[in-house]
Amino acid sequence: MAESTPVRFGILGCANIARKVSRAIALAPNATISAVGSRSIEKATAYAKENGYASTTKIYGSYEAVLDDPEVDAVYVPLPTSLHVKWAVLAAQKKKHVLLEKPVALNVKELDVILEECESNGVQYMDATMWMHHPRTAKMKEFLSDSQRFGQLKSVHSTFAYLGDTEFLENNIRVKSDLDALGALGDAGWYSIRAILWTSDYELPKTVTALRDPEFNEAGVILSCGASLSWKDGRVATFYCSFLANIAMDIVASGSKGNLRVHDFVVPFQENVAPFYTVEGSWIGELATSIHPAPSEHQVNTDLPQEALMVKEFSNLVGSIKGEGSKPEKKWPTISRKTQLVVDAVKASIEKGFEPVEIIY
Amino acid sequence: MAESTPVRFGILGCANIARKVSRAIALAPNATISAVGSRSIEKATAYAKENGYASTTKIYGSYEAVLDDPEVDAVYVPLPTSLHVKWAVLAAQKKKHVLLEKPVALNVKELDVILEECESNGVQYMDATMWMHHPRTAKMKEFLSDSQRFGQLKSVHSTFAYLGDTEFLENNIRVKSDLDALGALGDAGWYSIRAILWTSDYELPKTVTALRDPEFNEAGVILSCGASLSWKDGRVATFYCSFLANIAMDIVASGSKGNLRVHDFVVPFQENVAPFYTVEGSWIGELATSIHPAPSEHQVNTDLPQEALMVKEFSNLVGSIKGEGSKPEKKWPTISRKTQLVVDAVKASIEKGFEPVEIIY
Repeated sequence: MAESTPVRFGILGCANIARKVSRAIALAPNATISAVGSRSIEKATAYAKENGYASTTKIYGSYEAVLDDPEVDAVYVPLPTSLHVKWAVLAAQKKKHVLLEKPVALNVKELDVILEECESNGVQYMDATMWMHHPRTAKMKEFLSDSQRFGQLKSVHSTFAYLGDTEFLENNIRVKSDLDALGALGDAGWYSIRAILWTSDYELPKTVTALRDPEFNEAGVILSCGASLSWKDGRVATFYCSFLANIAMDIVASGSKGNLRVHDFVVPFQENVAPFYTVEGSWIGELATSIHPAPSEHQVNTDLPQEALMVKEFSNLVGSIKGEGSKPEKKWPTISRKTQLVVDAVKASIEKGFEPVEIIY
Repeated sequence: MAESTPVRFGILGCANIARKVSRAIALAPNATISAVGSRSIEKATAYAKENGYASTTKIYGSYEAVLDDPEVDAVYVPLPTSLHVKWAVLAAQKKKHVLLEKPVALNVKELDVILEECESNGVQYMDATMWMHHPRTAKMKEFLSDSQRFGQLKSVHSTFAYLGDTEFLENNIRVKSDLDALGALGDAGWYSIRAILWTSDYELPKTVTALRDPEFNEAGVILSCGASLSWKDGRVATFYCSFLANIAMDIVASGSKGNLRVHDFVVPFQENVAPFYTVEGSWIGELATSIHPAPSEHQVNTDLPQEALMVKEFSNLVGSIKGEGSKPEKKWPTISRKTQLVVDAVKASIEKGFEPVEIIY
């Protein structure tokens, strides 16, 4: 597909996060918003206006209508998690490529239904984990993959937290058992789990053990939790995710030869430049009174925000499938499924009284 | 005691770490090295010369001789952990104040013997956890204690690791089951556990659970391990300690209102100035495309290195006891014992197949 034929997106629903992704689609050079659908046509109309959609954008009063539109190539699905399996499956059956918000499913069984449908219909699947697409992520991976600089991964810790206010903790879909039943684990833990798997070259841990005493709301939805992951080779990972702490987005990775640190991995402090920190070959000074060298700061510029790069990458894949008959890229469903497997294992461990849960792939 | 009457230290043994503490005693305004003892008088003589001890320093061919010297007020004990209980107890019985290297004992039962002997003999006890005495530590604590800036502690992670070379991993006392049987847990984990307790205002966790799959040497000594700690109020802590990873000395603490990060908490990168990072009241920018504010760097200067401040603080306490008949300061044995209790719990959890261990205080 030539760059002059952009991938035409349909947006399912008027979620707040869809405003960010709508802007990203507008910014991406190979994508355009073709349609938006909501259960209420008034809501969709207002939403299109508020978000500066082109006047040519089709406005529908149902999700089905978006899926039935032959001028929609791909859908972005920011619906509550409990609705993902229904709408992602229908989209795939209608041959729409699927960019799916996380958490992608309530469990891997549901996700497998989605992934199988995408595969059998030959459509691209990608979860909307935006930070994967920031050029900083590739730069950090270069460091982690360098056997001379970072060496072998020994330990990684990730935190993703933000502080929900009273309104959020009472009314947000992320704390509703019928909408996003995975709570903070699905919403924030998803990122930390992805970060840990990313650091580990997506090798699944052998065992996942939830940290004791997570916090729940009255409906039993997780508001904060954590887990430890182990790989049987001495490698360990831990994470903490929460709706009850100030914003923290950390990855702290220890290798045999170096360390990587980043403190804004999910959403960079600034949109156009993002920092990370490395140190390698550290040594202790005379009389053990100092440590050398101090960590180095790296700043990675980006012309497009990470969510636009995500749309661009997704649209490139869709373009290749449409234009050149390529097969869907398997990397994205594969790492999405691995992330979900770990999410499920943490949840299972919590339910089993913090017993270790083995991951069966 | 007037400042003109410095506390007279006896050094037991010629450990490498004693070189650092000898310099610290020389730097502290209220301390002096009065004697050094080794099992070999030749070794002690050479050591005194190499380390620039004053010609008036008494050189002894045994530890007993140091303890019998009436011109020794206090001893610094850098012997292998397995010898601590014998020599710290003897020192206390001879009315010498005790500055004890960590890990202070092989278990809390041994430590209690030491602490009881120190208490009944009215001598000051302090463990040689140097970073406690850096002015940065007090500045960081100010932030953590500020209910408006940091809020309530929700999560803390600490890593302390360094890479042992072949010589270290084969011959260092820290990997010998008859000398420092706690291995990396006692040597490196001690600091991370102390950091976690310090962050938690020394409130002991309810439960300690070792991370699965620590690494051991052939003699069964721990080379890397970790644990999670929980407090029953949703607060969690995790740590990783290792002889098998590049130097890392991290504390990453999440509060309900702010975050604290430090990456060289055990030994600062530089001797005379040490950084830490805070952020508070974070908020998400328009469309969730940026996070504000970026963390602030704080630099804390110190006129004396942290180990000299430790000697100064210890000597102040000893001076008050000697000169003014004060009672020994209980803070130091109390936090030492709590640290040991958590070390013991991690070890017990490892031995019990990573079962949770309740801390009984």
